[in-house]
Amino acid sequence: MHIAEKTIEVRYAETDQMGVVYHANYLVWMEIGRTQLIEDLGFKYADIEKEGILSPVIDLNVSYKSPVRYGEKAFIKTWVEEYDGLRITYAYEIYNGQNQLAITGQSKHVCVKQENFRPISIRKMFPHWHEAYEKVKK
Amino acid sequence: MHIAEKTIEVRYAETDQMGVVYHANYLVWMEIGRTQLIEDLGFKYADIEKEGILSPVIDLNVSYKSPVRYGEKAFIKTWVEEYDGLRITYAYEIYNGQNQLAITGQSKHVCVKQENFRPISIRKMFPHWHEAYEKVKK
Amino acid sequence: MHIAEKTIEVRYAETDQMGVVYHANYLVWMEIGRTQLIEDLGFKYADIEKEGILSPVIDLNVSYKSPVRYGEKAFIKTWVEEYDGLRITYAYEIYNGQNQLAITGQSKHVCVKQENFRPISIRKMFPHWHEAYEKVKK
Amino acid sequence: MHIAEKTIEVRYAETDQMGVVYHANYLVWMEIGRTQLIEDLGFKYADIEKEGILSPVIDLNVSYKSPVRYGEKAFIKTWVEEYDGLRITYAYEIYNGQNQLAITGQSKHVCVKQENFRPISIRKMFPHWHEAYEKVKK
Repeated sequence: MHIAEKTIEVRYAETDQMGVVYHANYLVWMEIGRTQLIEDLGFKYADIEKEGILSPVIDLNVSYKSPVRYGEKAFIKTWVEEYDGLRITYAYEIYNGQNQLAITGQSKHVCVKQENFRPISIRKMFPHWHEAYEKVKK
Repeated sequence: MHIAEKTIEVRYAETDQMGVVYHANYLVWMEIGRTQLIEDLGFKYADIEKEGILSPVIDLNVSYKSPVRYGEKAFIKTWVEEYDGLRITYAYEIYNGQNQLAITGQSKHVCVKQENFRPISIRKMFPHWHEAYEKVKK
Repeated sequence: MHIAEKTIEVRYAETDQMGVVYHANYLVWMEIGRTQLIEDLGFKYADIEKEGILSPVIDLNVSYKSPVRYGEKAFIKTWVEEYDGLRITYAYEIYNGQNQLAITGQSKHVCVKQENFRPISIRKMFPHWHEAYEKVKK
Repeated sequence: MHIAEKTIEVRYAETDQMGVVYHANYLVWMEIGRTQLIEDLGFKYADIEKEGILSPVIDLNVSYKSPVRYGEKAFIKTWVEEYDGLRITYAYEIYNGQNQLAITGQSKHVCVKQENFRPISIRKMFPHWHEAYEKVKK
């Protein structure tokens, strides 16, 4: 199992009038977390898209536990919770500047062709990526 | 039970390079859906904040079924799925321009004091709002 | 000359911790304004992109005069300030919920091919659109 | 004169369906640039807000020269172009992953009280910050 780690400097633009990070913006950080994980495994998500493949989210859940504020550095941990050759479930923990658990979440993804959004088999189309996921999944 | 309905014109800014609406932006539309529901009940969320009360999301889940594209009008239905005087769970369905179900989701909220993020009882602090929620919950 | 008019319900997501609309979000509203103007002229920007043509911003200026707040309805006026067959300059005025002038701005656009971002002549490629712009420009 | 430098990893969320970074998102990067500049001078913008002072943008201009794409690292240079004790004009250059100049821009700011948005004198209220700006302005 591999846990990708990434520090995020909270942007002013990410706050709302509650004075804390707007709840939808954590999804962007979760994306940064899985980008880091994919990089840790030796791949680049941008390269996958260059082959006409997208990896959209199909299911998402997030629990909000403590707020994160501008001026803090947040910290995100990302790992592969489940993987079956077709679908990947990433799991996330985000910590705020006081090192409190701020967010836990999971997102499930498939890979699809850009031209028609039809799912493809990761196992068949990206065997190296498949192998790496098999190795690091929980 | 009351279902709030709202049409949303998809903004160019809401797309990403997949050519469809970016997945985090549906959370913004869900917020527009619950704002409409609160208005249908005769209240304004902005007024609640003027009393120093916020209503943050504490739990969220979203299933992504079909993409929504720029140039389409999306349609969102919102209702109160659960309510117990303290916590509200809103449920959502979003339809794309071909009238396909694009998104289903739920978000659970509490009300907290802005000064310390401590939860308050909606039943006690906003009895009229409480009554309205009791009437329309599923 | 034609002035397109559009009402915008301020979204919670558009605020920041200053308690007002975040300054970058007015650019999104300006885009909504020019979308409305193009529609008023009988065209759809989405259709132009279907022909492989994009219309990126090349120059932008904005003056911020009064804040706009969540809970308000903003109002945007958009017109064609300059047009020469190649470049379009749109001008904008945004009013807040107290009917104060909140923002003035201008954005200059060209049309380019999606494949290589090379500029094209609107006059030649979209003669109907060209004609409409000639008629409504200031 | 001091030029603050900051590398920005382009986020997927920052793209739009043109396949490049959405034009409004560069304003967020400009904000990251000036945050870095303020830090280089030994201050934190978050601390200034804790004293009830905001520093909104009052004028903005941006020229878009080349697109920036997901998967690239962008690079932003920020400096103080003008400063008179009341108003600060920051200037920016953003470079894309091919080291091409992508964006040039300027933003003018004042400092205001959060409670009423009335301007204050930076010279009087933040003498250390004033001194630092005097030293690094162009």
